[in-house]
Amino acid sequence: MRAEIVAVGSELLLGDSVDTNSAWLSARLAEIGLDVHRHVTVGDNHTRLVDALTRAAGRADAVIVSGGVGPTRDDVTRFAAADVAGVGLARRDDLVDYLRQRFAASGRDMPDNNLVQADIPAGGRVLWPVGTAAGFAVDVAGAGRVWCLPGVPWELRAMAERDLLPALRAAAGTLTTVSRLVRTAGMGESHVAAAVDDVIADLDVAAEAAEAAGDGGQRHSVPTVALLASGGETRVRVTARAATRDEALARVQPVVDAVVARLGAGGAGWPSPAPATGSAAGC
Amino acid sequence: MRAEIVAVGSELLLGDSVDTNSAWLSARLAEIGLDVHRHVTVGDNHTRLVDALTRAAGRADAVIVSGGVGPTRDDVTRFAAADVAGVGLARRDDLVDYLRQRFAASGRDMPDNNLVQADIPAGGRVLWPVGTAAGFAVDVAGAGRVWCLPGVPWELRAMAERDLLPALRAAAGTLTTVSRLVRTAGMGESHVAAAVDDVIADLDVAAEAAEAAGDGGQRHSVPTVALLASGGETRVRVTARAATRDEALARVQPVVDAVVARLGAGGAGWPSPAPATGSAAGC
Repeated sequence: MRAEIVAVGSELLLGDSVDTNSAWLSARLAEIGLDVHRHVTVGDNHTRLVDALTRAAGRADAVIVSGGVGPTRDDVTRFAAADVAGVGLARRDDLVDYLRQRFAASGRDMPDNNLVQADIPAGGRVLWPVGTAAGFAVDVAGAGRVWCLPGVPWELRAMAERDLLPALRAAAGTLTTVSRLVRTAGMGESHVAAAVDDVIADLDVAAEAAEAAGDGGQRHSVPTVALLASGGETRVRVTARAATRDEALARVQPVVDAVVARLGAGGAGWPSPAPATGSAAGC
Repeated sequence: MRAEIVAVGSELLLGDSVDTNSAWLSARLAEIGLDVHRHVTVGDNHTRLVDALTRAAGRADAVIVSGGVGPTRDDVTRFAAADVAGVGLARRDDLVDYLRQRFAASGRDMPDNNLVQADIPAGGRVLWPVGTAAGFAVDVAGAGRVWCLPGVPWELRAMAERDLLPALRAAAGTLTTVSRLVRTAGMGESHVAAAVDDVIADLDVAAEAAEAAGDGGQRHSVPTVALLASGGETRVRVTARAATRDEALARVQPVVDAVVARLGAGGAGWPSPAPATGSAAGC
């Protein structure tokens, strides 16, 4: 199951803010077995957001949008999502009540411009606010589902944990992704790359064969190897996905052994004692 | 002059790294008067990178790519950039010499896979390495120029300061962008938005009129207003662009005055004592 992430906000394009939401979402989506193929950031601009959402929904099963769902003139996401889905906006009385109660509880008047936050693309699923901004999910005919969440990180994370991730986990099945890291010492990235090149080449061939034989999803039965160079160290990450954690580990282990054997000839590689990263749906 | 930024790296799509390069580049490009219209992140995948570069170069005058210019199998940027430019790769003897000397100086053998770092899209401009990875710039026929820089932040920043930004500044002219912030207290974002709504609406009308009358670049003669809500405070940023800093300030000031007047009716707004952000080409 493929996902793309769209971040909305001119402050991101001006460099006033760093987009941490896309990284957080990506890590969580990887854990439940989704492939994130692309991140896109656009400003608070209706035309460019419609373009980005249309393209993303045409490629991915799930498009996750962060930002642009607030009450101000800048907040264009609800209008763009409705346009892409080919529907209008419908005012939700339960959200109007929620907003009025929230303002009343804090002893403040509610400016009328807040009511736009009760407008959800018609037929869409409401993701109930955790702050003041509701999220929503809408289907795009012939394409994927678009999930729109607030850009404020704590609101986005709470809404994702409560609504988005359980729904995607259910839709994606019970695939589990497991990674193991092989650490190296005293070898530059290019030396590590040269040492494990044949391991990666073999996996690439196997993945292409699996993809050609299957429905595309079969590619994911073949482990992947990535080199992570930072802080003077190059780590080798081996990742596999399977229905269960044990099955994923069984796929990872022979590749880890092969990598260690290649690096071990240089006397410089050893496996990490425990999984450095990894997660299991349902664990 | 329009720019787009493309970040390359599967670690970004897995959420293992946060893309700070795009934010840093965006801030620097804004300072020299470029509009960044989009950020895109793709993995270490030739097909998807070619697609992203082709689209970006078709929309923007300058596409800045971070990452994927190293020596490993993962590093697909040089191949993708050459394909998009419709040229082959040419091995640069001066880069071969540099790489050999660099390895020799550290007393290490150079694996042959490092030589790929001396391969630059034919006809491209070499951006000399600040670490081991060279960058390069290539033109795409009928579209914009693509600048490819290393993804390692200190290498990217050094190469951008030395080569990219001076070249873009020269190409973009001497436009200067100036911003001022108006701070507020005791007002929620929606209250601030309601108070300044007519100011923003008037500027939108003026910007559309300027764009319709001119070549598109004229839109930038009209200041923009953005609301920045964070940490319980909503700030109002007024930005203008002009040939000189004084001219840009002269465009900003009446808008700042109007914003303060709207907020001041609620007794809650005041201007920041000094420019919170801002820069001037040539200053």
